Amino acid sequence: MSDGDIFTGEVIGTAILILFGAGVCAAVTLRHSKARASGWIVIAFGWGFGVLAGAYTAAPLSGGQLNPAVTIGIAVDTGKWGKVWVYLLGQIVGAMLGAVLAYLAYLAQFRANVPTEAGTDGPGGEPVPTLGVFSTVPEIRDPVANLVTEIIATVALVLPVLAFGLTKGLGESGITVLIVSLLVVGIGLSLGGPTGYAINPARDLGPRLVHTFLPIPNKGGSDWGYAWIPVVGPLIGGALAGLLYNAAF
Amino acid sequence: MSDGDIFTGEVIGTAILILFGAGVCAAVTLRHSKARASGWIVIAFGWGFGVLAGAYTAAPLSGGQLNPAVTIGIAVDTGKWGKVWVYLLGQIVGAMLGAVLAYLAYLAQFRANVPTEAGTDGPGGEPVPTLGVFSTVPEIRDPVANLVTEIIATVALVLPVLAFGLTKGLGESGITVLIVSLLVVGIGLSLGGPTGYAINPARDLGPRLVHTFLPIPNKGGSDWGYAWIPVVGPLIGGALAGLLYNAAF
Amino acid sequence: MSDGDIFTGEVIGTAILILFGAGVCAAVTLRHSKARASGWIVIAFGWGFGVLAGAYTAAPLSGGQLNPAVTIGIAVDTGKWGKVWVYLLGQIVGAMLGAVLAYLAYLAQFRANVPTEAGTDGPGGEPVPTLGVFSTVPEIRDPVANLVTEIIATVALVLPVLAFGLTKGLGESGITVLIVSLLVVGIGLSLGGPTGYAINPARDLGPRLVHTFLPIPNKGGSDWGYAWIPVVGPLIGGALAGLLYNAAF
Amino acid sequence: MSDGDIFTGEVIGTAILILFGAGVCAAVTLRHSKARASGWIVIAFGWGFGVLAGAYTAAPLSGGQLNPAVTIGIAVDTGKWGKVWVYLLGQIVGAMLGAVLAYLAYLAQFRANVPTEAGTDGPGGEPVPTLGVFSTVPEIRDPVANLVTEIIATVALVLPVLAFGLTKGLGESGITVLIVSLLVVGIGLSLGGPTGYAINPARDLGPRLVHTFLPIPNKGGSDWGYAWIPVVGPLIGGALAGLLYNAAF
Repeated sequence: MSDGDIFTGEVIGTAILILFGAGVCAAVTLRHSKARASGWIVIAFGWGFGVLAGAYTAAPLSGGQLNPAVTIGIAVDTGKWGKVWVYLLGQIVGAMLGAVLAYLAYLAQFRANVPTEAGTDGPGGEPVPTLGVFSTVPEIRDPVANLVTEIIATVALVLPVLAFGLTKGLGESGITVLIVSLLVVGIGLSLGGPTGYAINPARDLGPRLVHTFLPIPNKGGSDWGYAWIPVVGPLIGGALAGLLYNAAF
Repeated sequence: MSDGDIFTGEVIGTAILILFGAGVCAAVTLRHSKARASGWIVIAFGWGFGVLAGAYTAAPLSGGQLNPAVTIGIAVDTGKWGKVWVYLLGQIVGAMLGAVLAYLAYLAQFRANVPTEAGTDGPGGEPVPTLGVFSTVPEIRDPVANLVTEIIATVALVLPVLAFGLTKGLGESGITVLIVSLLVVGIGLSLGGPTGYAINPARDLGPRLVHTFLPIPNKGGSDWGYAWIPVVGPLIGGALAGLLYNAAF
Repeated sequence: MSDGDIFTGEVIGTAILILFGAGVCAAVTLRHSKARASGWIVIAFGWGFGVLAGAYTAAPLSGGQLNPAVTIGIAVDTGKWGKVWVYLLGQIVGAMLGAVLAYLAYLAQFRANVPTEAGTDGPGGEPVPTLGVFSTVPEIRDPVANLVTEIIATVALVLPVLAFGLTKGLGESGITVLIVSLLVVGIGLSLGGPTGYAINPARDLGPRLVHTFLPIPNKGGSDWGYAWIPVVGPLIGGALAGLLYNAAF
Repeated sequence: MSDGDIFTGEVIGTAILILFGAGVCAAVTLRHSKARASGWIVIAFGWGFGVLAGAYTAAPLSGGQLNPAVTIGIAVDTGKWGKVWVYLLGQIVGAMLGAVLAYLAYLAQFRANVPTEAGTDGPGGEPVPTLGVFSTVPEIRDPVANLVTEIIATVALVLPVLAFGLTKGLGESGITVLIVSLLVVGIGLSLGGPTGYAINPARDLGPRLVHTFLPIPNKGGSDWGYAWIPVVGPLIGGALAGLLYNAAF
């Protein structure tokens, strides 16, 4: 695969992933959305099927890694670091693009996120915080515990992905992409409770940059004090999974 | 494939799709339905498995496109426009047929959609609007934003479908149809909040025609002022996806 | 396949199907169940994965039809009626066995279905009707409309099953069984609202017989006046799907 | 497969299974979790996708049995008992490891499980019982009925698993692992209501040991009086499934 194909594939694939992922967070949390308050099952399947859509689209170009933690895990496992920067660059650019697309898809909802009285055109109330549409926010703020959660959840993603690749070849078989996407649904359901499961540095950092610069009414802060945890935790988790995989398999 | 097979396949497949799709909207919104108020997760999986049922049934005859936006996207990508009109005709006829079947399946519920007092035979209350069973209704009425949402959501459908086709051959492999149907579940969960995700001109226009002419009690208006958006938006999105696919892959 | 294998396969497979199906209805409706009031999505996936479990288990022995409407549909399509009675006998025996197993699995819950005051060991209240665990109960009692609903829903099951069989061979491929089970989830979500989707005469009649004879406290009536509709409707639907398939494919 | 590979595979696979399974129970029941009170559908899919993650990861090393009931069922069926102790040892060690990992992933939530007043940082209230995160607790305490439920639910797991293995080879095909994981979702939805579906002695015993020794605030008792049922019931069920499979297939 050429550098250009890898970059293009990761940009498109990660953009689709974040469009679905930020989209489902908007769908569930913003007022004036048909899916408002539809629950955690919707969040988890929305993100998982975002992986399905993004990885399957990107597969012919770049293999569809879409996540620096996966890329690092593969590099630690194989020892091949030459293309890593192309993957990472594509992933962060794609994540920013996807966040902008999700914002555009929910433009009317973001514009309506102002204090309103309940009326005939939907529920009223105070504006809702918008950062959660773009990036993760921990339920309890505790740097060590949050970091541990992100590390464990990322190992639970990358170790199976490496094992799946061993037997089936990631990106070649539709069934592998489907299984990885259901794995991501499972991580959301099971391990998303404490921190909202970033498990992907690009997924968190790219949209947080977009949230900082976009002119969203009543958007609230972008919480940069927390931003290092969903970057560092998944990177540690990805590397750990690569080491563990090398040791055990 | 002969014109007759294509037409028959698209009629049957799109009829099944709309039977499931309008059916699940009836199931969730009409009073006296066992699934009433069962939430967005039910809507999204109902439509997605409607794609599964319709596309897999139609696959041996027509390939199971079932959506003018997909047909246009393939035509823009391949440059072959000769059979497009057969697909489109079959899709709109099938969508109307499916809407009538869904109406018949929920006949007693539509007939009971009258002002009633709560009693032993179920919940009472005012009639519910019935257009939402047949066609999409935006949560916030804003033509530009609604159009942008439909364009983005349709690109998110057609671009992966084109990429899936590249690697696996749409309609030949059960796993491809399964993945496309879960992709449609994902679009519903993630991008359905603002407009109810038409992403298919036939899916919206056909049932709207049926709603206009069927003798449903207390049916309310058919909202023809909005009808152009779920036709034009998906057509633009499908064409855009075809162009994007040609450029990137 | 020998008559003995067909009979054994259909008994085991249909028993598993009804164990899961009646089980999930018990799980959602009986008091003192961890899944009580967990909604329509649980019902639909429980039945669908019951098809998965039953059909995949029965496949090596009988092909896993598990449903007289499917058996009739295949017979109408192929013109081979010689083994039909073996399938039907196995299906009705299996359905009765499955209903007894579901009763045993929820024995403590059925025994506790007596008038109680709310207390430390769970919710109190009046006994709930138990027929819905075993057989279908229409939401609005209207013989013609109920029959039409069952016919349409059964065509929506059997026509795709026949088309799936054409391309992949039912029972040979895991993916086909998976797709049929998700199709059944879809029918539940989309078309189950009016009558509770029998779409299978054995599924309704076998458990209704068991309900009539089992010594369940406060079980209420077995509603034999309605019992012909979930038998006749699916049989008509299955035959209709066979005719339609022959005509169109 | 060497003893070392089997042991390593079962430890890693069962640890992943319990990380997801205990994780989803923590997610739904602990206060200060984003998924709190998200319902039975989340529980069932979380456990099922834990099977997907664990079994697919372990498959190349040990075949991914992860459950003494499955191991016993295969031994009864095949008559090969030589490696059984290696599987069982790996499963119980893995289950304990997975419970510790789930505890660490939800560390902040366990620490916050103290009496609090409702405030700006989340819901207040009394501590919730924590045993349900680790092990099963029956809804109605009735040893005979609970045992019967576990036996039936385990037969419903192991009999299809044996039949799946016959046609497809467990662990070789991604689709087989996917189907087994959806089967586990189905068992949870349909048969989990009375006892919380242990259906796996290691799944219940390992985490119960961990719960006994971990320093969790307000953890409540570990209910050792019930502990034999989710061990003995699934072992009986697994053996019964092996006998039944031998007799019928």
